[in-house]
Amino acid sequence: MDYHDTSAWDPHATISTYLTLEDIAKTSNEQYETPILKLVADSKQKGYKRLCIPLTTEKWKKRWSEMCLLPMGVTPESKESAALAAETWRLNPGFRKDEVTITRLDEAEGVIALISEWLELDAADDWVRHDAEIALKQELAYATYLNIQTVILPPPRNRDHVASYARIVQSCLTNFPYLYLSIRLPIYNPSVFQPVTPMLSPVPLASTANATTPSLVISESEQQSDTEGGSVNATWEMWDLIRSMCDYNIKLTLTIDLSPALPTTLGVLSKWAAESVRHIFLPSSTFIANMKGYPHRPNIILAEASEGHHSRGGEAAYSQYVRHLEKTSQAVQVTKRPGTVENFAQGYQDYLQAPLQPLMDNLPSITYQTFEQDPVKYAQYEEAMYRAFLDYPGDDKLVVCIAGAGRGPLVARCFRALERADRDAMIIAVEKNPNAFVTLQERQANEWDNKVHLVFGDMRVVNVPEKANILVSELLGSFGDNELSPECLDGAARFLKPNGISIPSSYTAHLAPLSSSKLYNEARSTKTEKGLETPYVVMFQAVNILSLPITNSHNARSARLRFYIPHAGILHGLAGYFEAVLYGNIGLSIHPHRKDQVSKDMLSWFPLFFPFREPLYLPSNSELQVSIWRLTNTRQIWYEWHAESFISIPKSASSGEELLAQPSSLPSASSFSSFGAPSPLVDSKEPIFLDTRRLNVNEQSNPVHADREIVKIGHTSLHNAGGRSSWIGL
Amino acid sequence: MDYHDTSAWDPHATISTYLTLEDIAKTSNEQYETPILKLVADSKQKGYKRLCIPLTTEKWKKRWSEMCLLPMGVTPESKESAALAAETWRLNPGFRKDEVTITRLDEAEGVIALISEWLELDAADDWVRHDAEIALKQELAYATYLNIQTVILPPPRNRDHVASYARIVQSCLTNFPYLYLSIRLPIYNPSVFQPVTPMLSPVPLASTANATTPSLVISESEQQSDTEGGSVNATWEMWDLIRSMCDYNIKLTLTIDLSPALPTTLGVLSKWAAESVRHIFLPSSTFIANMKGYPHRPNIILAEASEGHHSRGGEAAYSQYVRHLEKTSQAVQVTKRPGTVENFAQGYQDYLQAPLQPLMDNLPSITYQTFEQDPVKYAQYEEAMYRAFLDYPGDDKLVVCIAGAGRGPLVARCFRALERADRDAMIIAVEKNPNAFVTLQERQANEWDNKVHLVFGDMRVVNVPEKANILVSELLGSFGDNELSPECLDGAARFLKPNGISIPSSYTAHLAPLSSSKLYNEARSTKTEKGLETPYVVMFQAVNILSLPITNSHNARSARLRFYIPHAGILHGLAGYFEAVLYGNIGLSIHPHRKDQVSKDMLSWFPLFFPFREPLYLPSNSELQVSIWRLTNTRQIWYEWHAESFISIPKSASSGEELLAQPSSLPSASSFSSFGAPSPLVDSKEPIFLDTRRLNVNEQSNPVHADREIVKIGHTSLHNAGGRSSWIGL
Repeated sequence: MDYHDTSAWDPHATISTYLTLEDIAKTSNEQYETPILKLVADSKQKGYKRLCIPLTTEKWKKRWSEMCLLPMGVTPESKESAALAAETWRLNPGFRKDEVTITRLDEAEGVIALISEWLELDAADDWVRHDAEIALKQELAYATYLNIQTVILPPPRNRDHVASYARIVQSCLTNFPYLYLSIRLPIYNPSVFQPVTPMLSPVPLASTANATTPSLVISESEQQSDTEGGSVNATWEMWDLIRSMCDYNIKLTLTIDLSPALPTTLGVLSKWAAESVRHIFLPSSTFIANMKGYPHRPNIILAEASEGHHSRGGEAAYSQYVRHLEKTSQAVQVTKRPGTVENFAQGYQDYLQAPLQPLMDNLPSITYQTFEQDPVKYAQYEEAMYRAFLDYPGDDKLVVCIAGAGRGPLVARCFRALERADRDAMIIAVEKNPNAFVTLQERQANEWDNKVHLVFGDMRVVNVPEKANILVSELLGSFGDNELSPECLDGAARFLKPNGISIPSSYTAHLAPLSSSKLYNEARSTKTEKGLETPYVVMFQAVNILSLPITNSHNARSARLRFYIPHAGILHGLAGYFEAVLYGNIGLSIHPHRKDQVSKDMLSWFPLFFPFREPLYLPSNSELQVSIWRLTNTRQIWYEWHAESFISIPKSASSGEELLAQPSSLPSASSFSSFGAPSPLVDSKEPIFLDTRRLNVNEQSNPVHADREIVKIGHTSLHNAGGRSSWIGL
Repeated sequence: MDYHDTSAWDPHATISTYLTLEDIAKTSNEQYETPILKLVADSKQKGYKRLCIPLTTEKWKKRWSEMCLLPMGVTPESKESAALAAETWRLNPGFRKDEVTITRLDEAEGVIALISEWLELDAADDWVRHDAEIALKQELAYATYLNIQTVILPPPRNRDHVASYARIVQSCLTNFPYLYLSIRLPIYNPSVFQPVTPMLSPVPLASTANATTPSLVISESEQQSDTEGGSVNATWEMWDLIRSMCDYNIKLTLTIDLSPALPTTLGVLSKWAAESVRHIFLPSSTFIANMKGYPHRPNIILAEASEGHHSRGGEAAYSQYVRHLEKTSQAVQVTKRPGTVENFAQGYQDYLQAPLQPLMDNLPSITYQTFEQDPVKYAQYEEAMYRAFLDYPGDDKLVVCIAGAGRGPLVARCFRALERADRDAMIIAVEKNPNAFVTLQERQANEWDNKVHLVFGDMRVVNVPEKANILVSELLGSFGDNELSPECLDGAARFLKPNGISIPSSYTAHLAPLSSSKLYNEARSTKTEKGLETPYVVMFQAVNILSLPITNSHNARSARLRFYIPHAGILHGLAGYFEAVLYGNIGLSIHPHRKDQVSKDMLSWFPLFFPFREPLYLPSNSELQVSIWRLTNTRQIWYEWHAESFISIPKSASSGEELLAQPSSLPSASSFSSFGAPSPLVDSKEPIFLDTRRLNVNEQSNPVHADREIVKIGHTSLHNAGGRSSWIGL
């Protein structure tokens, strides 16, 4: 763990208001110089942070349409004059005064500009697309002139030409380097929201029949019934293509449009949590229950708040309600409760840290102090020692060896456990950090009454005065063995009597595939050449875990793991976790499904993040196979990792003159179970783990059918090959 | 086109001999110091270039197996002693004298070492794999000690653990930077070649029952019947994974093992032509007909040549026959025939050249001279002009304008066409290169009797004395419009009378997806940052065209093309071709299917290669969608390109709670045909193009069924976004 500046961190979302052309039209300037200035002042007074307004008027739409969209049946003369006007405009694109809503710098202050919603950047017609691109750049140039920082683009609507849409956005990001572009996207297929279609909101805040959303012009071809999940995937797939083609540009964000009703199963929405959502577009007419605590603290744009869709509470009620939902949301509340990981970790979310190397480096005292504050970890160690002491025959002499004592927290806990168990023991404390050893000597004199045998030196080579019955160590890293616990304990095993007890008694590493644009960009932008070739310690927030395996271990030096991917997503990396059994059913866990049951509120470890250089696209219902190796030479330890993707199709689907792959030469169900080693904690007889076991059964949905075959569809590079970028010194 | 040193180019394959441990055992040294030295001398005397021999003996296999593979039922004592021996070996891996075949530097000269074939680098057992890796590195270290440059590794055998095999190879490439590693791989599933199975060779050179291949130890699990194509795909897929995980290291090559019988349909083998085949392993017992002219001039290793499988001809007959096949192969013969593209292009194969920019740059005289030597191009122009003159009313005055006359080849051809047609005309020649204009003036005085109106200047701005009936230009690039023909001709259109004729009358650009490790590596290794973001002119050789479309045009500013991919492959780039109609049915074409019919032996254009930064894996029966844009601003023209891959699966195959994608929002058959614009030449009424039309019909195999849905499986980046790396100056 490491510290970085978190002072800029504000846990609250911004709330803005969306005003339409009608709102502007019906505003009289009263004591202000222009209607816009009055609207700006009004919305400030109502407590809104920013104002979101369309940049152009109906007049511009009319002129552009007359020039660029020749209607059927016009005369050749008017056709020619339109073509001439268009060519003149293309050479020198510009607005007339009454074609824009804003003309002054002071009007534009704090404004988020909505680009003309009728621009079809993905029109099927080459020329319409071409002229829409010119018009878009004209609007962006005008917004830049007015010092506007953020604009919202109309949504892509045509899967056939979304690549052209993306190409245009990429070109704008290059040409307008100081503008933030945000793409408005309905969270799923908005076709159910055609004005003529009744709203199908499952949890409406209030019933309303007035649910037209002005900014969504849906073409006829999208009119179809569809499952919610498929529709979320289709819109997400468009977004994915756009941001990939724009090379994950950090100035490109997403405006999630919640105008369409939320789907009934919120699980399919989790993929949006991994994206850079900057704005949430929230018309008052839609329900607003079930709002998730979006990770990026986006700007919430309230639309139609003044239209009186609801009879009570007035306009202020909407933002008050959003604030209320935010305040009462579990995600926000937990960050305010001292002692929680979420409270402790504020400012660390998605922040990449280099893993500690306590073997190679001598840690500073401040680092020891941080980790000693963990309210759970040492309590678990004390409990484990206490139970081990109770189980130990009362008349035998007890020798406890603390291997890697640091500043002495485990020594202190050992004394307390002995006191609770009413036992006496010889305590040996081994430590190789000469600086920490000074602190140990001081505590020895001041607290421990010289009862501890202090041994200075590396546990792999020193000798202890007596062999121990119980060997206690805390060498675990986020991924279990990444702080070289195996190598150290191999050396310290000499200290233990033949039937002695080791605390921890075992530990397991866990891997899960992970999607996160944010982490991918963070890793990519690290200054060092390591970048995407080294693992990081990260408190995950804006991530989407694509799949969690039943159970997996890398007690061996390598593991090959298979994951079923239910929803399409982009693989950006692997999340690494550990789970350790200290003694009996006392454990430590950072596994996302089990940590709260095993060691709730433990702060010492964030997960490990293994990045991938090239994001790998994973379709829905695909299978991911991950290989990871823990490698060593005489001086270093390192990990290498690699992934392949597959799709399972019915055998009858194979067409053409050949089979796609040899089913029998591909991983079989049996090779899967060979790596699915049972987790020691899962196999525990204690009730605390029952939930976990149930969870495992639920997850076991990976279908292997004899009448299907598996087709390979992609793979990543081999990462950190030869340990060239990340290694852990021995 | 550009020249580079081709002196090192040797069109012949090297032939080597493979000797087994038995061959060595039965050799007496006679007047040589060691048996190996005698074998080296013998094989040199027989005309072999190099000697391929196993590096280790049976003794090493025995010691390794006893240490590392504990048999069932051994006593605990011998188990412990084996474990101790193994641990001692692992700490200090090394051979004893009788465990290796070669011990002296002079023995190793020119030797290709075969690594112990029994090493299971992809064993399912972690420890066997681990010890095999140590043994492999021990052999490589010993080979390095003996100054051996090339070693051949045993084939991967286990699809489940081929990632581990690849990881080990990558590690060896790093640790042994001066060794070339070549992976022996049967061209397809060798399981039909189990010693007990009768040989199923379709075109055997001679019948033989003695077809065991000593180096292939096939595990029981691979025993299965399979189609040939599926099996080729399976072995290729293993190779693809290995070289991808080794990041296309140029020191990693392929030893194609032709021990298994060749498949009946050679089409499935084309993917190997795009790979870096360094050696071909060819036992005398297998048939050797149908040998393809492998592009890299690999080393052919003849095995068992001295074993007398065939009663007549003796050992020398085999290499003589290989030489005969090589000499008589069409691919080699054509390079020896003067006037062929293959002869002209020797040394240019797969060599990346920057496209010419004749508009921005003034070409040197030597470049004009090279292109004027084309035996076909100017003949076609002359024929087109001749036919146009014939079709022109006899009593009208004829004005011919040559736009971009260069050093005057088209002027000279124009005179000849006029003479043939018995017509007279006013000839205007426009040229903007002041240096070439000097040559024009000289020819005007010496050859043309001052009959030509020479006009100096840029055709986009100059004026000509009289409007022309026929405008002739030769501004075409490899991709049609990439030398700015449209921009120039837009400017020169002023020269033409209202119903005048343009030669060429039309042209079309064609794209095809392409796989080539060699081109990918070449583009990647260019020193400039452009590297993989700019198109190149290339004479393709070691490439595999993954698919050819029915027909496609980018007369518009952008095109989206769909390709059906029958066989799995890696997309490394796009091949760009053009086809032009000069007049009537006289054309120019570099389209691979049509060039021989339209303009055989034309030399002036090699195709264009648009590279992709990250190779995209395309499974068998997948669909590739390519978008390409031709973009412009006031100063530059550039292309951007992008690709997405899809797989079509039956609707019933979709499992889980959601649909994979919305079929109706994906490209439909109608959008495909909208880009399938007919080629002008294909639509010609002349019989010369009939074959082409037939070919199109045969290729139209892209299946679109209503009961299938299309799932996206991958995509590339947007290349050359914003024209940042490649542009063509206006």
